[in-house]
Amino acid sequence: MRVEATSINKFTDHHYQTVPDLLAVEEPLELRLGFGEEHIRKEQRLMVTMRTPGNDEELAVGFLFTEGIIRSAQDILSVKHCNRLESEEERGNVIRVELHPQVKFDPEAAQRNFYMTSSCGVCGKSSIESVQQSCEMINAVLNVTEKAIMDAPGQLREKQNVFEHTGGLHAAGLFSEAGKLIRLREDVGRHNALDKLIGSSLLDSSSASLRESFILVSGRASFELVQKAALAHVPMLLAVGAPSSLAVNLARQTNMTLIGFIKSSGFNIYHGEKRVGKKIEHFKH
Amino acid sequence: MRVEATSINKFTDHHYQTVPDLLAVEEPLELRLGFGEEHIRKEQRLMVTMRTPGNDEELAVGFLFTEGIIRSAQDILSVKHCNRLESEEERGNVIRVELHPQVKFDPEAAQRNFYMTSSCGVCGKSSIESVQQSCEMINAVLNVTEKAIMDAPGQLREKQNVFEHTGGLHAAGLFSEAGKLIRLREDVGRHNALDKLIGSSLLDSSSASLRESFILVSGRASFELVQKAALAHVPMLLAVGAPSSLAVNLARQTNMTLIGFIKSSGFNIYHGEKRVGKKIEHFKH
Repeated sequence: MRVEATSINKFTDHHYQTVPDLLAVEEPLELRLGFGEEHIRKEQRLMVTMRTPGNDEELAVGFLFTEGIIRSAQDILSVKHCNRLESEEERGNVIRVELHPQVKFDPEAAQRNFYMTSSCGVCGKSSIESVQQSCEMINAVLNVTEKAIMDAPGQLREKQNVFEHTGGLHAAGLFSEAGKLIRLREDVGRHNALDKLIGSSLLDSSSASLRESFILVSGRASFELVQKAALAHVPMLLAVGAPSSLAVNLARQTNMTLIGFIKSSGFNIYHGEKRVGKKIEHFKH
Repeated sequence: MRVEATSINKFTDHHYQTVPDLLAVEEPLELRLGFGEEHIRKEQRLMVTMRTPGNDEELAVGFLFTEGIIRSAQDILSVKHCNRLESEEERGNVIRVELHPQVKFDPEAAQRNFYMTSSCGVCGKSSIESVQQSCEMINAVLNVTEKAIMDAPGQLREKQNVFEHTGGLHAAGLFSEAGKLIRLREDVGRHNALDKLIGSSLLDSSSASLRESFILVSGRASFELVQKAALAHVPMLLAVGAPSSLAVNLARQTNMTLIGFIKSSGFNIYHGEKRVGKKIEHFKH
């Protein structure tokens, strides 16, 4: 399954419509390695990545190769999804690679290496379930007009100096409820731009609370971005691009307003329309 | 420093021009934690992320918050760049956060958690230097025409079924030297799309060698994407968007041809123009 059907609230030509939509599926994949001599095989849980299901065997093999753990397909005995799993979430989302007994693999070295690189924001949990438990429900009341939402990407671009010169940076902007850009952070990494923005608000205690603001990210809305925003109690996340299936699911579970595909003429509400707009007169006719 | 000046070979209106250009700077940031009781302080190297220098303190604090290690800025005594460092690469790129003695931090739990999430492709190394040593020089001879380069994004988009429906997927395509799309893989994660593509080539031993092909990625060219391609000995990487400073540096060091900003009318060569085009007659006048 690579797309998931959903229903969205689409704002265009000054009015709302409930329409069917398709989301790119995002789910976690856990990679386990079987290694060692034939009579003393061991298992190591290597990593979790957020991926679109499909071609999982290729993903596992490509990852092991580009991490230097295997040197060719000959280093592998088999690649298979695990069938005997405890939870529903894990089904189809755990893959096990059996290394050839001759392949040297040092689990401690791998662990030392991998824990250094957690910039993807999967939050270090070994299952989706445990991540979601750590996010509280978002109850903040916020009322952002349709105009403020459609104007936000223009404000972000205007202030994005580095992007203008290089075309190479993601941005995250913090906006007041009235739609004024309070602060902008840029980075080559999408999660880093959001972490910088959240960090700046924590360090600047004089600034408006994250609970009374909304955030716009320049690209798509992944699960990890929604999660970071949810952990910071941000009630509304806007994305210039599309959200993934899991991003929408998490927004629903935490009651965050999630909006995507923002253009100057409209946008899509994936969850939480109650925080959007007084439906003022000229949007009604 | 958030932009880096460079010189590129720009192909437009059927001819080449050497022009100055600016790149978004990408460098690793290592985050170290100081924690424990006042008289028995300990240090833990927590993670490395590829980031654009600037607002590093905010990035560190935002990361610790969204990972659940701190709950507010009050949990921190100080955030400072480390001054006493051994290597040139580390200068300005190592930051240390002193946790308040009252903050509970379990380095073993952090290590267990973080090693699960290495989907960013930083390859698990603790320094840039060690990553670069593992990439061999790319000596493959390849000759791709300007037309094949400009036509590649159109071929990719045409086959990107899921993107068309959802707007939400990255793609990586493997092309023959003549510019024919051999294989396409899509994923919500840019590194995963490339890992799937490389994995598919390793598993399908009947397919054309990666050493005789070029790869196009749908977004920007980060360091990690160039590194994955270099480890697979791919001689030419094309990106629809912009490359980062470190992506260009690694292409130069491994002698990979790196091309970005591909439009139907032109593109930018950041390194390795020798693999591009017979400069045929009508491109000369």
